[in-house]
Amino acid sequence: MKIAVLGTGVVGNAIGTKLIQLNHQVMMGSRTANNEKASAWVKQNGGNASQGTFADATKFGEIIFNCTNGAGTPAALNQAGAENLKGKILIDISNALDFSKGMPPTLFVCNTDSLGEQIQRAFPEAKVVKTLNTINCNIMVNPSLVPGDHDVFVSGNDADAKAKVTDILKNWFGWKTVIDLGDITSARTVEMWVILWVRLMGVVGHPNFNLHITKA
Amino acid sequence: MKIAVLGTGVVGNAIGTKLIQLNHQVMMGSRTANNEKASAWVKQNGGNASQGTFADATKFGEIIFNCTNGAGTPAALNQAGAENLKGKILIDISNALDFSKGMPPTLFVCNTDSLGEQIQRAFPEAKVVKTLNTINCNIMVNPSLVPGDHDVFVSGNDADAKAKVTDILKNWFGWKTVIDLGDITSARTVEMWVILWVRLMGVVGHPNFNLHITKA
Repeated sequence: MKIAVLGTGVVGNAIGTKLIQLNHQVMMGSRTANNEKASAWVKQNGGNASQGTFADATKFGEIIFNCTNGAGTPAALNQAGAENLKGKILIDISNALDFSKGMPPTLFVCNTDSLGEQIQRAFPEAKVVKTLNTINCNIMVNPSLVPGDHDVFVSGNDADAKAKVTDILKNWFGWKTVIDLGDITSARTVEMWVILWVRLMGVVGHPNFNLHITKA
Repeated sequence: MKIAVLGTGVVGNAIGTKLIQLNHQVMMGSRTANNEKASAWVKQNGGNASQGTFADATKFGEIIFNCTNGAGTPAALNQAGAENLKGKILIDISNALDFSKGMPPTLFVCNTDSLGEQIQRAFPEAKVVKTLNTINCNIMVNPSLVPGDHDVFVSGNDADAKAKVTDILKNWFGWKTVIDLGDITSARTVEMWVILWVRLMGVVGHPNFNLHITKA
């Protein structure tokens, strides 16, 4: 499958590399067509890896992974273009973390709104599915790094898109439990969780942990 | 031990009843000395149970459990009185849930502040420990209702107070894992978790669930 990965940071690298390992054709998108981090990633990942602008990659991809930093997401998706996103599944992994006032971070949108909702409103013809923002990027594509049962979530308005993303999470990335939280307004719940995640990282001492919902 | 339970709702009832079962003397506090719900609770719980105003109960208690609704907490604690809270452990279980605009609820304070922090600022001589707000009240005092490993958190500025509350959680209420998140600013992380908790309750279909942090 042709897949776009928007963003050249650690999340984009982890997702893109996993997709290449799964034999997909992956274009990494960034602000410029010749981004150096994207070039380095392409060099490491062989013939199925390519790079381009956010618009190039989004046009190329049948599915789009938004791996941009939350603060840069609106600009990145505006460059990606509504026409290129139209009708496609947009998997949103971004977080609204604001480190500008030091640690601990706060969120620049939360409670009554979320990045996931903002993206869905800005691109009503894209099928936005929020997921994977609740764990470290290494665990996103290799959940077995954390032992035992643990969970990932999906939020979105389009049931078919959520079903497809759930299939990707389970059968491509290896997740056993995918919890459907409801429509895209539930993106705010998993974006708010990240504030607890950051504190827990300090307590645990590393990012290789996750939550498991256990029930009676 | 003499203990104050502030609040006559389901949380105050669950905590108060458990403490009575553990042979403590418990005064349930409310706005008026003759609150009907408190009277009913006293009647059910025998000679070690009593009732009074927020001030009466707080004066009586060596440890104070704040089980009031978050929106009513500031007024309740003002009635309790700074002099009566001085030097005492104040276990804060309140949540900032705002249901005034319907479901799903939002928080009336979050992200850059929390109820726990507001209480600590308002009563600097109380030793505020935020805990137990992350689960349903039945699980608070009977964690074995949920099978398997699952966790509760403490947040607060006073290490000795957190150690005492951790002892209460483990040896009185039966918690196996108590995670210390840090100072009282970490109260915002567990208060924000509740927004995810509410959605999960809809997915799970009942409130008898909790989270477990699993790590590499």
